This record gives sequence, structure tokens and C-alpha cells, in this order.
Amino acid sequence: MKVLIIHGPNLNLLGKRDSSIYGEKTLEEINNLIKSRASQLDMEVEIFQSNHEGQIVDKIQDIVSKDYKGLIINPAAFTHYSIAIRDAIEILDVPVIEVHLSNIYKRENFRKESVIVPVCTGQISGLGYNGYLVAIDALKIIE
Amino acid sequence: MKVLIIHGPNLNLLGKRDSSIYGEKTLEEINNLIKSRASQLDMEVEIFQSNHEGQIVDKIQDIVSKDYKGLIINPAAFTHYSIAIRDAIEILDVPVIEVHLSNIYKRENFRKESVIVPVCTGQISGLGYNGYLVAIDALKIIE
Amino acid sequence: MKVLIIHGPNLNLLGKRDSSIYGEKTLEEINNLIKSRASQLDMEVEIFQSNHEGQIVDKIQDIVSKDYKGLIINPAAFTHYSIAIRDAIEILDVPVIEVHLSNIYKRENFRKESVIVPVCTGQISGLGYNGYLVAIDALKIIE
Amino acid sequence: MKVLIIHGPNLNLLGKRDSSIYGEKTLEEINNLIKSRASQLDMEVEIFQSNHEGQIVDKIQDIVSKDYKGLIINPAAFTHYSIAIRDAIEILDVPVIEVHLSNIYKRENFRKESVIVPVCTGQISGLGYNGYLVAIDALKIIE
Amino acid sequence: MKVLIIHGPNLNLLGKRDSSIYGEKTLEEINNLIKSRASQLDMEVEIFQSNHEGQIVDKIQDIVSKDYKGLIINPAAFTHYSIAIRDAIEILDVPVIEVHLSNIYKRENFRKESVIVPVCTGQISGLGYNGYLVAIDALKIIE
Amino acid sequence: MKVLIIHGPNLNLLGKRDSSIYGEKTLEEINNLIKSRASQLDMEVEIFQSNHEGQIVDKIQDIVSKDYKGLIINPAAFTHYSIAIRDAIEILDVPVIEVHLSNIYKRENFRKESVIVPVCTGQISGLGYNGYLVAIDALKIIE
Amino acid sequence: MKVLIIHGPNLNLLGKRDSSIYGEKTLEEINNLIKSRASQLDMEVEIFQSNHEGQIVDKIQDIVSKDYKGLIINPAAFTHYSIAIRDAIEILDVPVIEVHLSNIYKRENFRKESVIVPVCTGQISGLGYNGYLVAIDALKIIE
Amino acid sequence: MKVLIIHGPNLNLLGKRDSSIYGEKTLEEINNLIKSRASQLDMEVEIFQSNHEGQIVDKIQDIVSKDYKGLIINPAAFTHYSIAIRDAIEILDVPVIEVHLSNIYKRENFRKESVIVPVCTGQISGLGYNGYLVAIDALKIIE
Amino acid sequence: MKVLIIHGPNLNLLGKRDSSIYGEKTLEEINNLIKSRASQLDMEVEIFQSNHEGQIVDKIQDIVSKDYKGLIINPAAFTHYSIAIRDAIEILDVPVIEVHLSNIYKRENFRKESVIVPVCTGQISGLGYNGYLVAIDALKIIE
Amino acid sequence: MKVLIIHGPNLNLLGKRDSSIYGEKTLEEINNLIKSRASQLDMEVEIFQSNHEGQIVDKIQDIVSKDYKGLIINPAAFTHYSIAIRDAIEILDVPVIEVHLSNIYKRENFRKESVIVPVCTGQISGLGYNGYLVAIDALKIIE
Amino acid sequence: MKVLIIHGPNLNLLGKRDSSIYGEKTLEEINNLIKSRASQLDMEVEIFQSNHEGQIVDKIQDIVSKDYKGLIINPAAFTHYSIAIRDAIEILDVPVIEVHLSNIYKRENFRKESVIVPVCTGQISGLGYNGYLVAIDALKIIE
Amino acid sequence: MKVLIIHGPNLNLLGKRDSSIYGEKTLEEINNLIKSRASQLDMEVEIFQSNHEGQIVDKIQDIVSKDYKGLIINPAAFTHYSIAIRDAIEILDVPVIEVHLSNIYKRENFRKESVIVPVCTGQISGLGYNGYLVAIDALKIIE
Repeated sequence: MKVLIIHGPNLNLLGKRDSSIYGEKTLEEINNLIKSRASQLDMEVEIFQSNHEGQIVDKIQDIVSKDYKGLIINPAAFTHYSIAIRDAIEILDVPVIEVHLSNIYKRENFRKESVIVPVCTGQISGLGYNGYLVAIDALKIIE
Repeated sequence: MKVLIIHGPNLNLLGKRDSSIYGEKTLEEINNLIKSRASQLDMEVEIFQSNHEGQIVDKIQDIVSKDYKGLIINPAAFTHYSIAIRDAIEILDVPVIEVHLSNIYKRENFRKESVIVPVCTGQISGLGYNGYLVAIDALKIIE
Repeated sequence: MKVLIIHGPNLNLLGKRDSSIYGEKTLEEINNLIKSRASQLDMEVEIFQSNHEGQIVDKIQDIVSKDYKGLIINPAAFTHYSIAIRDAIEILDVPVIEVHLSNIYKRENFRKESVIVPVCTGQISGLGYNGYLVAIDALKIIE
Repeated sequence: MKVLIIHGPNLNLLGKRDSSIYGEKTLEEINNLIKSRASQLDMEVEIFQSNHEGQIVDKIQDIVSKDYKGLIINPAAFTHYSIAIRDAIEILDVPVIEVHLSNIYKRENFRKESVIVPVCTGQISGLGYNGYLVAIDALKIIE
Repeated sequence: MKVLIIHGPNLNLLGKRDSSIYGEKTLEEINNLIKSRASQLDMEVEIFQSNHEGQIVDKIQDIVSKDYKGLIINPAAFTHYSIAIRDAIEILDVPVIEVHLSNIYKRENFRKESVIVPVCTGQISGLGYNGYLVAIDALKIIE
Repeated sequence: MKVLIIHGPNLNLLGKRDSSIYGEKTLEEINNLIKSRASQLDMEVEIFQSNHEGQIVDKIQDIVSKDYKGLIINPAAFTHYSIAIRDAIEILDVPVIEVHLSNIYKRENFRKESVIVPVCTGQISGLGYNGYLVAIDALKIIE
Repeated sequence: MKVLIIHGPNLNLLGKRDSSIYGEKTLEEINNLIKSRASQLDMEVEIFQSNHEGQIVDKIQDIVSKDYKGLIINPAAFTHYSIAIRDAIEILDVPVIEVHLSNIYKRENFRKESVIVPVCTGQISGLGYNGYLVAIDALKIIE
Repeated sequence: MKVLIIHGPNLNLLGKRDSSIYGEKTLEEINNLIKSRASQLDMEVEIFQSNHEGQIVDKIQDIVSKDYKGLIINPAAFTHYSIAIRDAIEILDVPVIEVHLSNIYKRENFRKESVIVPVCTGQISGLGYNGYLVAIDALKIIE
Repeated sequence: MKVLIIHGPNLNLLGKRDSSIYGEKTLEEINNLIKSRASQLDMEVEIFQSNHEGQIVDKIQDIVSKDYKGLIINPAAFTHYSIAIRDAIEILDVPVIEVHLSNIYKRENFRKESVIVPVCTGQISGLGYNGYLVAIDALKIIE
Repeated sequence: MKVLIIHGPNLNLLGKRDSSIYGEKTLEEINNLIKSRASQLDMEVEIFQSNHEGQIVDKIQDIVSKDYKGLIINPAAFTHYSIAIRDAIEILDVPVIEVHLSNIYKRENFRKESVIVPVCTGQISGLGYNGYLVAIDALKIIE
Repeated sequence: MKVLIIHGPNLNLLGKRDSSIYGEKTLEEINNLIKSRASQLDMEVEIFQSNHEGQIVDKIQDIVSKDYKGLIINPAAFTHYSIAIRDAIEILDVPVIEVHLSNIYKRENFRKESVIVPVCTGQISGLGYNGYLVAIDALKIIE
Repeated sequence: MKVLIIHGPNLNLLGKRDSSIYGEKTLEEINNLIKSRASQLDMEVEIFQSNHEGQIVDKIQDIVSKDYKGLIINPAAFTHYSIAIRDAIEILDVPVIEVHLSNIYKRENFRKESVIVPVCTGQISGLGYNGYLVAIDALKIIE
């Protein structure tokens, strides 16, 4: 069972950004935790990060032709306006889980609306990097 | 590690309600799955359901005096207007996870706003009854 | 043919409240008129009043297990915010008629929106206590 | 006791329109049911249908000079914008009941607001063609 | 100097409508006062009343081909939604004065917006039937 | 193949109205161009103009009983409020194309919303009188 | 018959401001026209201009103790926010007419709302300096 | 002179909640201060706290039949949505003062609107527990 | 203990204004009651009234350099728009209580928002002139 | 006569996406139909598809330096937020037609607003892939 | 080259107000820095501060008759509601720069809108007292 | 002292775009003026332009690892929706100044909101290309 994980813009700087909101782990450390959890559950993950909306759309379109069984995506800033990403997800027929490190409902008003979540299976927010691990669990259970 | 799980109004009728949205399992079946998952992780759960907002507030207040290490709550209809439940949660100092069976962001507009999530640690929605199981995992990891 | 009639909060004080809006009859007098009309049409009614949202939700859930053929409900103040009552009604498969004594569209803005009517069969408002009698007629005709 | 009944625009095509919303009876069949009910209650009805807002205003103004004891009006599309019809009704001193075949609160947002109901005695919606019959009953009871 | 005066829907019932808002004079009495004022100022008036939006549009279009030097219009209910009347006025090149008997800014919210006044020369409201007389004066002065 | 073309209010004055928005051709000249294009494509057109909403509703209802294969309508001012025209179109089962001479999205805010387009097949705006010709092409291709 | 006329802020610069909106006459010239019209009608006027909201409130309060029979006020910028002026006018029991040189409904959105007009007798706008003359006429007629 | 004092949901936990907002005194300590102040002014108080909206409505209805001369109520969370409490208060004919410990206008937006205050005599907010003492004074003075 | 009391615009006319809203006492009578209450509590008051926003700002700034222990302010009309007064109050470090004679939450919508209260300690409204007396009490208790 | 045609994000997956909305033809098939129509009219087309907003902006800027006589663009998801594309189009001086396959006014609310259409010549929506063909016709006619 | 600098209400207390927002320099110190910068650039400045809107309007009107080459204004609280100041600026034909010490877009919502900036040449915000110095530079460069 | 300057989408076409809004200088000419000003102040600038949001985010991230002492950014169209650029700026700890050539508060409504300015130090708008020069000055002064 192979799963794609996409990190949106600026997440490559995790650990360098305001730690009171996003925690202190770097993206590399988090990716290692994700891989480790996946491997415990006999799952394989591919991880992709980009600051470019178009590259993320291209990557999501790959799912149509490749053998992924699920998508975990933290669209970061794109959560709030990228209808292009929304449209790319809408044509998938695998489970898609939107993950947010912080509880977006505690923050600025514009962060409370996701234009993407209505076309996902579900959403996990506010659990820090553990949100990715829990999303892995969820894909395993749903399988 | 003991955890409280609260089901809000009308969830006692799960399995009798529109199954295309909430799934086909009854609340009893779901509670058994929750207990089984918790026991695998060496956790103890107490489960409470009520159609009465006041009883739910009373129950949450118990956490202050009792030895719970976390709260998982599906406030159901109260999600959208019970500031009394919000205020009760706000004084807690244990992790609180709001769970919704359905992806509330795909449904009627009024279901998209939770007055409660801003005082929770995080939110899990759209994963069906698996949301409870994943929330159990999350409390275990966060511990 | 047995029908349930529910009166929401503060309706127990009818006749003591501003009579220019709600009329001068007490709830007991109105209930007698309802029973009399029902009996003329060979219908049986059970009548329930409560100031507690949770008790009303519990009562509505009874319909699922009992042999009622219809529900007439005046949710009073709950009309405007009780999504719990809405959710309870939504799972019923009998006709449900929402009744309001006054024409709610002539009053304060917040009284113009019912969160409950979208899951009812229909609504009758502005006919005073006659609204209940006409609702009885309607359930008879629809039968 | 003589009563005027007005059907608004496009209702002349009832039975030819989407039957899942408006039912399968033609306007002629409904008018016969209305007349029959009225005659049972010793009432006389005049029925008028028009697609022209101005003709409906003219007709309502007739009530001032003629001997009608009540008005039942389904303004159809005009419900949502005809302030001219509203103003015509506002000067009447007989009971006026607004009837809608469908439950307008279940439909598109713009159908949820009636500019006319604030000047009516009451409103009956969602009972299909039975709404007219029940309105007849109501005028009889109020008399 | 010839001027057209248009009265909108329901104004034919003036004097029969709530006199606390619109005053006690009938439309005929007001029209006589208008004619008398105009004649004092050596002006000629044509007066037109209709409950039909289309007839009012047709009448306004007459101004293009006829020799009117100004238009005084009380669009009544049409004030608030008749973009057709607005568009008809917009092509005129004579002064146009919108008159309202009552001060529309003291009344229901929907009466506060005129879709027509942005294409008129000016507006006079709240002066009762004197508004027409003052409008006559204004056309004379502007001439 | 016979097609109905409806011009809404004030379009009879085309060429006399602000030419910077609507162009300089009169309605008669445009109608001739429409007929010529239709005849090139072996189509027959009937053309109807009215300033009366009710007459346009009546005309649209004719399509139900007559043998038209499509409707091209420029509702002009009615675009923005005539739910009666919307309801009349909604029951048709032929393709309907809404045409606007100007790009309504460049103009006043109230002109940006069409209450009619949601029940049409499609919309063409901003192409001047060529919009009608292109709509003819479209009906031919769709056929 | 003595009448007070108040000009709000920046009107002292009339004739120096954008003439396409406010016309080319200076305030002094307009005041002379006002006095001349008043004198023709056997009325006496006092004219007051200020850029200070407090001075205008003080002046309006004078009416309570002095023998004015009416107030004509062009609140200029204060039209849109001075509730202090509104409250001062509300206690008067003489007729009050709000005058605007330009048609405020053709201009920026914020100029379309007057917080003062709801407590005036009426409003005249869009007639340029003639608006003052017409307001004088109106006070004479109403007398 | 006997007065009823009602504390809404979660106020039983005062002193355990965020002290920067609500102060450090427990409800019992506050109640003693209230009783002491009342007794200085020769007033008698009954104090009631509940987390259940229905119980509060029931209690308020008691005032109709019992000999209370005033009501002081801190509806807490119910301030913002309990129309049932509002309706219960509306029928009273004794003075009612709404008290809030914190200045609700400094806090989250949803706390700025009270659905209850429009039917109260007045409101006191932001004075901490002293608000209750001042409300006692007020009832004494108004008496 | 010396306290400053500020009355906003038009309050100098109290007793001459609509007495159903503001009561029948003149400002002088109210000021005497205030002084008497203060003297009973061994407090000294300075009282200031102005219709000029700038003078009120100047007066509030005096508090920074003078020995006042508190401010009681009824900003009247300025309540709703004077950010200048708000900013002046924001820099004070003495308790500030906003007082309104009427219950502003029962009146026009624009009166429901105070731009000033978020920077005050608290607010008292709806108690008539007693509100000032109670505010005096409050400053004494808080001391 | 050479024309540029731009397809926005995810349109490369046409035929693989929900066919009830977008039809069953692949982008390649549609492009062939476009080329064929253009060639019938002696026009030349260049066709460009991208999921990257920046690449589309770059491409549009090419028009300034190259010899295109018109632009047909289906901005897809970018329709609703790409002000960058809007700004790029705004500087062009050739006709620009926005095309949408579906009737965007029948779909989710956010799809109803195009930030791009106000700077285009016109818009064609709801005609499926025929919209491109009709747009070709339109550019030919306008030429 | 002579320039006018206007400081709005409460800026006379700079250095006494919350220093985390406005910095620690007093107005006198800032004025000296402004004069020094101006003198380096061979410019002359006149500086004016007032808490009175009317005095600021009067001062701005002076520019029309005096020989100022530019205006730098920090309207402080008046930024958000003084249309009187806006109107006074609108008639000037010298460059006008609005300066704010703090970044008003980081603060309360009501501080984000300036009613004055649309009639200024430009705006500088968030640079503390340096904003005035930079504005001096700007006027020099623009000259 | 080294500073990064970023020009957003379509600014590469400056001088080719509507000169009434953006001026007549090309980007190259402006860049030369910027370099010249910087060099006068002993500062070094790097200048970057892109139509690709992702490239701008990448470039801003460079600041974290490179030795820039400040950022001047004109996000152009991205001003209004690029939360990705906002998030990239938010993690910087150097001063950031947002520059706009035009006064964005005079233009279309959507141009009035910057999603980026709340995380910048300040904003300069409406000064044309001089805005860049003044921003250079500001960074020098702040240093």
C-alpha cells in the first residue's frame, strides 16, 4: 500500500518558523517520523514539498496514472485560495486527508476557511506533526 | 490513562439515521470498537451520551475533579451553538479532540462553523466512526 | 390515527403573556380545542409541553419506536437555534408540521428564520391557536 | 361568505412542471378540489390566475369595492419581489393567507424570503395543493 | 412647457390607504392641486397612473418622441426593484424628479433604496402631496 | 428548425440609447442580421419584443405547446429580478441561451447577477449584436 | 415667519470646488438667491455656516428657545456620520428639510446614507442651489 | 423586598477559571458578598445556579407566581443564544438587570451580542463581582 | 477621592427631549443628585457637558495631568463614532465607566454599538439617571 | 488571422473528470475540433495548456510582442482568484473571450464570480466544448 | 518650498501613550526631527496639532489661500470617520501624503479603513516617526 | 548593507501598461533609479522580477540564509491573494516594506485589501516609482 504525502509552501522552513504555532521539529525530522510510522504499518510513502501551486497540481494529477492508495496533503497557505488544487483532488477516487499542524480555527479569520476540504474525505487539524501520523493510521484503518 | 468520550444529541440513534451520511453502525457497535482500540493501547475509556446540553456541561465539569487525561467529544448539533459547552471545555487543562463522523465542510452552511473547536486541541472530521479510533491514537501519541 | 403535539418553552404561560401577539386563551383551553377537533376527525392526540430542549429531543425520538402517524410542533424560542431538535426531526418518516401562533415574519428579524422548518413537511403561521386545528386538518387530509 | 383565490405566474402550467416539487395535479383539478371544499363549508370562491403582476394588483384592489370576506394568494415567483402586490394587500381589512405548494424553506435561498407575508394574516407552505384546502378551513374558522 | 407626471402602483387608492403615512387626500384631489400649480406657472401637465410596470415603461418611452420638457415620477412600489423603469429613464435627456409622499428613510429598510434615483436629476421625499407641487416649482426654476 | 428570440424591455429603443454601451444599430437592423444568419443555417426565427414581464412569460409558455427547438433571450432589465421569467424557462426542455449585448460584468454591481441564467443552458455576453448571431450558431451546433 | 438655514463643512468653499458636481456659484451668491426667494414669500431667513460639528449642534439647539418656524440644513460631510446633529434635530418640533446640492445617490457608496434624514420631515437632493429655493417654497406651503 | 439572582452555566466553577478574565473569588464567596450587601439594604435574596437552560427558564417562570420584586441575571454563555430565557423574561413585570463579570465588549465578537438584554431593564458589565453589588443598589434605588 | 463626570452632546437639553426614552429630570436636577450621592460617599465630583467632541477630548486629556481617580462618561451620540474619544480614554490608567440613560440595546440598530466601551472598565445602561448614581457606587467599591 | 487559445489548470484531464459536468471528450479531441473550425474560417490557432499560473501569465504577455489577433481563454480554477492573469489581460488591445465549458452560474457559489471577465471583451459559458467553436466564430465576426 | 504638517487628535500625548505601538518619542521631539530633515532639504514646515475636527478643516482650507506646496497629515482617529476632512482635502491641488505611525493593517479592524486616503496622493504607514521624515523626502522628490 | 527588491507579476511590462495609472517609465529605467539612490546611500540592492508566485516565495526564503538587511516588495496582483507570500515574509526578521506604485485605495474594491501588509513593517503607496526610492530611504533611516 503506497501513499503520497504533499507538503505545501513554506513548510520546508518548519522549525525555523514561529515555534509557538508550528512546533520545533524540522520538516526532515517530521518526514522521518512519518516514514517510520508507515513502515510499522507496512505502508510505503512518497513525500513531496513545493512552494509552487502548479507543481503540486501536477503531482496530484500523477495519482490518476500511478498506483497510490491515498493522499495526505497539508496545503498550507494554498488551503485558503487554491481552487486549482481543489479541482485536481476532486477527480481522484482514493481517500484524501487534509492535515494542518495548528488548529486553524484558533487563528486569523482567513485561515478558518479551507477551499479544499469539501472535496477531501476528511480533515485533521491541531495535533502538530502527530496529525500526519494519525492520518497514516486513518488511511490504514479505512483501507 | 483514563479518557472521557462524550456523544452529543441524537447520536443514540446512529444506524437508524440517514446511513449515506453517518454510516450503518449503531452507537453500541461503535462504542465497542472504541473500547477495544483503547484497551489495545492500555487506555481506559468512559463513554457518555446525552440529548441534554446541561448534562453534557455537568459531565465535562467532572473532569476538573476526576482523573481524566483527555476528552474526545462529538458535540453533534451542539457543535454549532452551545457556547455553554465551549465555556466548560475552555477551563480544562487536558487535551480535547472534537470528532465529527461526517465531513462537516461538505454539508449545509450552518454545519461548517463549530463554536467549540477554537477551545479544543484539535479536530478530526469526515472519517466516520474511525474518527473516534484515530482520536484515541492521537491522545496516546500526545501523552 | 395517533398524533403527537409538542409545545415548546414558555407556551405553558399562554394567556399570561402579551395578548396582542399570542391571544388570550390559556394553553389548557387551546389543548381542549385541539382534542375536540381531533376527536371530530377520529384522531387521537398526545400533547407534551416542556421548557427543556433535551426533553423535547427525547420525546421526538419516541416517535421512532411508537406508533405515531404525525407530529405537530410549535418549537417557540427553539425555532431559531435548536439544531438538536432539527436533527431529531430529520430522521422521522412521518409528516411533521411546524406551527406558530403569530406571523413570525412580522416580528423581530431573528424570529424570521426557523432552523427547523427545512426538515418539516410544512409550516403554518399567523393563525393564532387556529393554526393547531388547521394542522390537525392537514394531517387528516394528507393521510 | 365569498372568498377570492389568486394564483400567480406559471401556476397555469401546474402538472406540466417538475412534479417532484409541485405534484402532479393540473391547476384545473386543484381548482375543482378548492371549489368542492368551499362548497362543503358553505363558502363561495372566485379563482383568478395571471402571469401579469399588474393584473394581480388590479384584482386585489377589487376587494376594496367588492364583498369578499377573505383572500387566499399563492404569489408564486412574485412572492420574492413584488412590493406592488404587498402594497395592494396592505390596505385590505380582510384576512389574507399566503399559500405555497412546496416548503419554500427547503429550496433555493432566494425562495426563502417573502416580501408579501409581513402584510398577510398568516402563511401555509409545504402541504401541496392541500394547502389551499386548509386555507379555506382557516378562513372558515377565523370568520 | 409641457411636463409628464407618472403615479406608480396603488397610488390610485390614495386616501383609502393608511392615512398616517400617506395623508388623507385622494389622487384626484392631488391631481387637481398639481394642475392648478402648473397653470399658475404657465406649465401644462399630463398625468398618468398605472399598476402595470410595462405600461409605465411604454409611457416613459413616449417622452423620446413627444415634446415633454420634464418628468415627475412617483414610482411607488416600483421604486425598489424596477430596473426596467430605470433603464427607460436613463435614455431621456430631460430633467427627471423622483417624488415620494412619505419620507422613505423613516420606513422599512427595503424602502430606503431606490434603484431609480441614480438616473434621475434629483429626489424630493417626505413632503406629502406638496412634494409634487415643489417638483413643479423645481422644473420651472431649472428650465 | 424553428427558434424563438425574445428581446426584453427598452431594447426597442436600441440605437437611441447610449451608444458607447449598446452600439449604434437599431433593433430592426439587428433583427435583419439575425434573420439573415438563421436563414444561412437553414433555421427559422420568430422575434418578439416587449416591455411587459407578463407578456414575455406568456410568450415563453407558448414554447411548451408550439414546435420551437430553442430559445434565445435577452431579458435586459428583467435579467436581474424577474423570477417569473426564470420559472417559465425552468419548465422548458429545449436549449435556452441568455444573451447580453454588453459585458454585464464591467458595469454596475446590480447588473452582475442574473436570476435567470441558472436555469438556462448557457450565456453569451459582451459581443454586442454579434452575440445573437453567435447564439444562432450555438443552437445549430448543439442541435 | 422666520427660518434657519445651516450650511455644513466646506460649503464655504463652494465655487472653488469641483464645479461638475456642485456648480459654479459661490456660497455668497447662493445665500443672496435664498434671501431674495424668501423675501418674495414674506419669509425671513438666518443663514449659518460652520466646519465645526459642535457649533452646528449649538445652533440647532437655539431653535428650541428662539422663534424659528422651520430649519433647512445641508449637513454636507456630517450627513453621513453626525449622530450628534441627528439627536439635536430629533427634539425639534418644527419642520426640517435636508438639502443636498448633488444627487447623493449617484456618488460614492458612503454618500448614499444619511444618518440625519430619518429625523427630518423630508429631503431634497440633486437640484443644485435650486434645492434651497425649493425648500423655502416647501416650508411656505407646509406652513 | 425579595429579589431573585440567577447565575448561568459554568459560573459554579468561578475561581477555577481563567482568573485574568473573571477574577479569583469563588461563587460561594461572591454569593456571601451579595447577601451581605442585600441585608445592609434590607433586601432578601434567593440565589440559583444551573448549567441547564430549561431549569433557568422554569425558575424565571416562578417569578410570575411568587413575590419577587426584581431579577438579577448573569446568563453567562446563554447570553448569546438562549431565546427561551429571553422569552421567559419578556413576560415579567418586575425590573430585570443583566450582569456580566467581564466587559463583554472587549472579548470575542460573539460575546458582544446579548439576545437577552433587549428585554431587560438594563445591563451592567465589566465591574467583576462588584457588578452584582451595584445591581442590588440599582434595584433598591429604582424601587 | 475626586472623580470626573462628562455628559456628551444634547444632554444639556434633558427633560426637554422625548421623556419616554430619557426621563423627565433636567440635567441640572440630575447633577444635583450625583453630587449628593458622591458627597454621601465622601467623594468629590467635577461635572462637564459639551456638544463639541474636541472639547471632550481636551477634558479627558486633563485627567493625565490632574488628580482624578476615575471617569464616568455618557458619550451620548459620540458613543457610536468618536474614535477620538476612544483613543483619549485608552491612555488613561484610572477606572472608566460608560453610562447610558436608556437601554441602548432596545433602540435603533446603530445605537447598539459603542466604539468606546472596549476601552472602558465597564458599562451601565438602561437605569435612567440612576445609572450615574450606581456608577458612583461602583467607583467607590472598586477603589 | 492568428489566434491564441489557453486552457487553464486540470483541463488536460478532460474526459477523465466528472463527465456529467464537463462532457466526455478529451482535451485532444476538443483541440482537433477547434483547429478544424478555425481552418474552415481561414484562421490559425495556437493552443496552450498549463497548470501553472505563472506560465499562463508569461504566455499572455507574448501576445504583446507577437502577431495574435485575439485570445480565447478558459481560465478554469484561475477564473476565481488569479488577479495576475487579469492584470496580464488588461494591457492587451486585442479582443479576449472567456470560455467556460459548464454554466458556472449553476454551480457552487464561488464559481459564480470571475475576477477576469471584467477585463475581457465577453464571456461564453455553458455550451460545453462548443463554446470554443462559437468563440472562434465570434472572433471571426468581430474582426 | 513650504509644507504644512497636521497632527490629529491625541497625538499631543505621544510618548505618554502605549509605547509598544507608537514609540517613545514625544511630539515635540518628533517635530524637531521633522524640522531638521526639512531644513536639510531646503524646505520650510509649519506644524499644527488639534483635537478638534473643525479646526483641522479650517487649517486645511488655509492651503487654498496660502502658499503651501504640500500637505502631510496624520489624521489619527479622524482617519476612520472624518468625511469633513476628506472633503477639505479633495479640493486641494497640492500633493497630500497621509502618514500613520503604526502599521494600521496590523491592528483592530476599524483602523484598517481610511476614509481620507482615497483623496490623498499616497499613504505611508508603519514606519514610526520616520514616516514623517520619509514623507518630507517624498514631497521633495515629487516636487 | 544589502537589500532585496522584488517586483511581482506584470511589472516587467511597466511603461507598456495604462500610463495614467502606473506612469510612463519602464521597469529597467526604474531599476536604474533605484540602484542610483541606493548607491548614494552606500547600500547595495538585488532586484528580482517574476510572474510566478512560487519563484517569489523561493526568493524570499533565500533571505533566511543570505545576508540581506531588508526587503522591499511590490507584490502587484499577488498583494490581494498570495497567502503563500505572506507566510514566507512572516518568518523573516528583517524590515519589510510593501510598495505600490498607485494609490490602491483609489481603485477597484478588491485592490484595497492587502493580505500581505499585516506581516510587513510598513507600506508606501501612491507615490509612483518614487515609492521605491522613499522605501530605500526608510530602510536606511531605520537601520
